Formats: sequence, C-alpha cells, structure tokens
Amino acid sequence: MKSTPEHAAIGLRADQIDTPAAVIDLDAMERNIQRMAAFARQNQVRWRPHAKMHKSAAIALLLEQAGACGHCVQKTSEAEALAAGGVRDLFISNEVIAPAKLLRVARLAARLAADGGRLAIAVDSPEGIARLAGAMDAAGSDAGIDVLVEIDVGQGRCGVPPGPEAVALARAVAARPRLRFAGLHAYQGGAQHLRATAERRAAIAHAVHAAAGTRALIEAAGLPVPLVTGAGTGTLAHEATSGVYDELQAGSFLFMDADYAANEPDTTQPAFEHALFIKTQVISTHPTHAVCDAGHKSHAIDSGLPLVHGLAPAHALHYANGGDEHGILHAAGPQARLPALGQTLWLIPGHCDPTVNLHDRLLGVRGGLEHGVVERVIGVDARGALT
Amino acid sequence: MKSTPEHAAIGLRADQIDTPAAVIDLDAMERNIQRMAAFARQNQVRWRPHAKMHKSAAIALLLEQAGACGHCVQKTSEAEALAAGGVRDLFISNEVIAPAKLLRVARLAARLAADGGRLAIAVDSPEGIARLAGAMDAAGSDAGIDVLVEIDVGQGRCGVPPGPEAVALARAVAARPRLRFAGLHAYQGGAQHLRATAERRAAIAHAVHAAAGTRALIEAAGLPVPLVTGAGTGTLAHEATSGVYDELQAGSFLFMDADYAANEPDTTQPAFEHALFIKTQVISTHPTHAVCDAGHKSHAIDSGLPLVHGLAPAHALHYANGGDEHGILHAAGPQARLPALGQTLWLIPGHCDPTVNLHDRLLGVRGGLEHGVVERVIGVDARGALT
Repeated sequence: MKSTPEHAAIGLRADQIDTPAAVIDLDAMERNIQRMAAFARQNQVRWRPHAKMHKSAAIALLLEQAGACGHCVQKTSEAEALAAGGVRDLFISNEVIAPAKLLRVARLAARLAADGGRLAIAVDSPEGIARLAGAMDAAGSDAGIDVLVEIDVGQGRCGVPPGPEAVALARAVAARPRLRFAGLHAYQGGAQHLRATAERRAAIAHAVHAAAGTRALIEAAGLPVPLVTGAGTGTLAHEATSGVYDELQAGSFLFMDADYAANEPDTTQPAFEHALFIKTQVISTHPTHAVCDAGHKSHAIDSGLPLVHGLAPAHALHYANGGDEHGILHAAGPQARLPALGQTLWLIPGHCDPTVNLHDRLLGVRGGLEHGVVERVIGVDARGALT
Repeated sequence: MKSTPEHAAIGLRADQIDTPAAVIDLDAMERNIQRMAAFARQNQVRWRPHAKMHKSAAIALLLEQAGACGHCVQKTSEAEALAAGGVRDLFISNEVIAPAKLLRVARLAARLAADGGRLAIAVDSPEGIARLAGAMDAAGSDAGIDVLVEIDVGQGRCGVPPGPEAVALARAVAARPRLRFAGLHAYQGGAQHLRATAERRAAIAHAVHAAAGTRALIEAAGLPVPLVTGAGTGTLAHEATSGVYDELQAGSFLFMDADYAANEPDTTQPAFEHALFIKTQVISTHPTHAVCDAGHKSHAIDSGLPLVHGLAPAHALHYANGGDEHGILHAAGPQARLPALGQTLWLIPGHCDPTVNLHDRLLGVRGGLEHGVVERVIGVDARGALT
C-alpha cells in the first residue's frame, strides 16, 4: 500500500510520477560514472565507491561494470543486503564490535569467498581485532578476511593516530591466522566539505603525509602494506594524485548533492552533475509563499535544505523548511513568480546518502526530467540497514 | 537481510538487542496513553492522535482502545497503510491536489464507509475543493467524504486566513453533493516548540480567537460547524480548555522526544515521559571521545541531536553529530567517564516523527530498558509512505 509497486512505474512519463518521489536522471548518472571511470584510469587508481550512498545492488553492479573494483559499506547489514543482490567484493569501512554481528561478518566472509569474492573490514583497537578473530574462529572460516587498520587522518572520529599504534594493530592482525593485514583505511571525512579549495587540498596533504608515514613504519616493521584506501567526492583528485592512496572510496559523485556543489570548484576534480532529484508538487498557495509536499521525510536536511532545480537566477525560488511533510517556497530571484497550485518542481537534496535512505525505490528517468520516461525502478536494497 | 525478522526478536532481553535499534519502553508508552486518555476525559474533548508520528496500525488500534476517536495522517499513502491495518476513522489533515491521488482518496473513502468507518480531508482552496469533488464523482462514491477547511491560525504554512475566505470555502464544500462540510482544521504547529510557557499560551490564545471568530462567521452564514480540530503535544492543554477546540491531534505525547522535553514545563499539561529510544553501542574509543554506531540514519536531527538517557547530571555524556552512521560522545558532567568499547547506551531522539520513519520496526520492551524483554515487534506500516 505504501506506493507504486516496482514494475508499475516503468514507462511512466516523468510528468506522471506521483509526488514526492526520488528520481534519478539516468543520463546524468551515467555521465558521472563515465567521468569517474575515466578519471580513475587516467590516474591509475582503483575506485571502490561507497555504497552507503546508493544502498542498491543494481547500482553497485553498474559501477563495477564501469570499472569499480568493489564497494565500501558502513554496516554489516548493508554488506549482507548487497551480497544478496550479487555484489561480491565488499569492504566494511567501519568498526564492528558486537560478537553476534562479528559472527555475521565471519559467515558473510565465508559465503563471499566461496563465491569467488572477498570481504574486508576495518579495525582500530586490539579488542576489536581479538573479537573479530574469535568470530572467524567460531565460524571456522578458513578463507579468512582482509583487515584494514583505520588511522585518523584528521577527521577526529574513528581510527588510531597515524604512527606506532597503527603498527601495533597491523602486527596484531597479522598474528591471527584467519585475519590478513590488508592495508590502511585513511578516510578524511572532515575535509570533504571544507568550502575553500585550498583548505581541502591542505587537509588531504596532511592525510597523505600521515598515511605515507604510517605505511613506511609498518613496512619497516616487516609487514607489507598492500593498500591505502580513502577519499570522498570533495577531495578525490588529491588522493588520486598523491602517490600514496591506491583506492578511492568516493560515492556521492554518482548523484552529487547540493552540499558538494557548494564547495568552491576545483578544476583538478572531475565535474560531476546532479543526478538525484526529489519531485514535489505545490499543494497550497498564498500571497507570500507556496507550500510543496516534500519535507524532511522526503529528503535529508542534515547538510542543508534542498535547492530548487532548473530555474534561471532571475526566477529562482528559495526552499524553506516546512516540517516533516512540507516545504515552503519563496520568490528569491528578482523576477521570480511563486509556482501555481498543482505545479511540480524538482529539488536537489542537500545530502544524497541519508536522502536515498528515506526511499524504498528510486525511479530512473531516461531523456531528461521534463520530457523523459521512467526506464527502470531501482530498489534501495539496504534502506534502513542499520546494524 | 536488512535486520532481525519480526518474530525473531520477541523474547530477547533488552541487553541482547542488536544496535542501532528503535526501542519502545512499553510501560512508559502505556502510562503516556493513560495520561492522555484521562486528560481528554476530564476535559471532555475528543482526541485523534497524529499517526504521522508512529505510522503503525497496531499502535493506532491501541490508542483507539484507550479512547482515541480515530487518527490523523498527513499523506494519502499513510491513510491507505493504516486502513489496510484495520484503522477505520482517518483524517488526512493536509491538502491533496494531484488528481490521481484524489482518486485514491475517493476510493479509500468508499472502502472505509463500506466498513462502517469514515475518511476526512483538509482543503484550503476552491481548486482543491473542485478537484476533490471531481474525484469523488469519478469514483461514484455516494458515501461521501468529510471535508474540513484548514485555516492558518499562526503557523504560516497551509490554510486560508481566518475569516471570510474560510466562509467561502465552507460554502463551496457544502455546495458539492459528495462533500460534507465537517468543520475547521486549525493546527498551530508553530506554537508547539516555543520554549516559554507564556509564549505557547499566547500563541494558542490567538489561534482560539481566530478559530472561534471563523466558526461564528460560518454559522452566521447558515452552515453548522460540527468540529474544530487541532493541537499538538506542546500546547494541548490550552486547546483542550479553550471551549472552542473539540478535538486534539497531538501525537508525540506517546513517545515524547528531546525537543518537546526542552519546552519550559507547563503544569497545566499532562506530564509525559520518554518512551522511544535508540539503542547504540560504542565501537571506537579515544582519549577525547568515544564513537557510537547511531548517526542520523538512525535518528532524525532536524530538531536537535539526541540526548544520552539515564545518566545523572554529574555523569552526563554529550552526543555530537558524527555523520550518517556515527555519534561522537564527550564527557559533559564533572564526573563523567567516557563509555568503554562495546558499552551500550540509550539515546532520546530529538524528534520522534522522522526518527520512527527511519525504522521498519520498533522493538517493544516490557520491564524497563535495563532488565526488560522484547514483548512485541511493532511494524512501522507507513514507513516511507510519502505520497
């Protein structure tokens, strides 16, 4: 009863899509994929997009067809949902501590290995390594699991400091028979939305220095470091050209949100386009404002409110928060006119990851938002996959 | 694959619940229901809780057993989901403009009427009334539909101004054979979180004055006004004792969130307790902070970050935003100690409505969060019901 079933939407014209709805401009998305694939080829770097953004096995397989080496996820249940959809090379780029969850990790590692795939996971504590090893032993999974030591390269969240602590963790991993030390997870999430290009560049220079130094220390201790992985959509060019990062984790490039678009442009980065939109309809009009049917149950607002797409600056509308189910539109441009009752608009979400997580499905439109047709319905397989 | 299936969680001890999870303290929830039921009885006012908060047919039926006269919803698809779960008296307290959606409204009105129930809907424009009447005619639904004219009593969102415009709309409704003019929808959403008790009281005094004046004008025009409906958890005592409002729409009283708890207390209001919690686990520890596994994909942050529950002020922890999947905990109280790796904590969400909408199910614990047991698993039937 929730909304149109998967198949029913295919063939609908974009102007027939009920509101609010999460809509993908497939042409824009595919151009973003080609830009990312070309960039990775040119820079001879692997790309492992973060599936916490799109949460869809179908999209993951599309990215892998274009050259992605696998996917990152943030949660065990995300890994399970994507594996069920056929994704076979997954990295849980996060710490898992609960023994019951680690047992699921161990079983998934065995299932993926049996299918020719692999599972990797991040650690940042001796206790986490011991628990993971215990779960792998309990599961009797002889295929093992790749383990990356997470270092904090400036975000101040998870990860040990670069340097000796990371060496100790790498050794602790290598000492466990079912764990393989697979490298360093060094994501600088705090750098992605620093607005000034120079600030982002400086933050990643610091991360590169920290990762390189830690890699050298671990190698000096006699352990090879097969991989340094990290990078987001706001900075990926800097990691890609660092000579230190081997793999890019950026995910948001696929849909590009308003928050990333607000960064000062950096000509060294590929130019990605907005590809995820919330279609909304005006349901109430007033002399001062119009009200549309998309609020923060339709799009996340943690990184700012959505922008109204496709209007020339002179005709711009400003979206203000109207609560869970409403948006309030004001005239912003000097010649802007408030939209009429029943008019539909396209919003660019502030942050694509938690926006996608609000929707059970994404409607993929071919041929543009105005005159296109729904070509495919993409299930958000890991929607609500929190554990 | 997403998470534990419905039945599997029943009988789990609270300390066995995987994280993050949305957990209901059933004892606290039931006390809130009894407080609300008693308050409504004492004040001889109907209560029609807003199901946009809990989105669950099972909870709706529980509230109706305790005396609720029916439920509000904000979306057509929410009404459909609750009706499918056995809720038969529903009010879509919002405008619907799309013809295809209005046809669904008309069909649902017929289904509910055939089952001894009823559907009501809000309008705030002549065009909306004409479209609704057209859909009712197209559906050939002779049972009709109750229509409430929405007036803007201070929120500045939907609704016509109190006064003559509302009279014109009431007349337009009454002129349509399949529409019944059923009264005024007069919700002052903007008053709910005014922090000062006196400000909330003044805002509702203004709303009461506006609603009373509009009611008198419509009655003077020869149309009875069977109902004035409105009120939220922050102000319901004022509407209840106004002599003008016949029905209370408050929904958040059931779970009480951190934002409502931040209002200056008002002794005329029933005292509701927190009943919705996010269970989370510490997955990474550092000298300066600990990181837990609940971020804003687990709880909404539109109305502020969650609070850490159950700690004395001296031991208080402060939750800072760590992104989609992480929370960052700092010591806040003078004797606070950072939690250990693997420790679990209970968070009080800032805003319950959009938090519930992130979860497919709520785990209902009996006997307290520390030592209780999962007694029931409550499906969030209208999760993601956006249209």
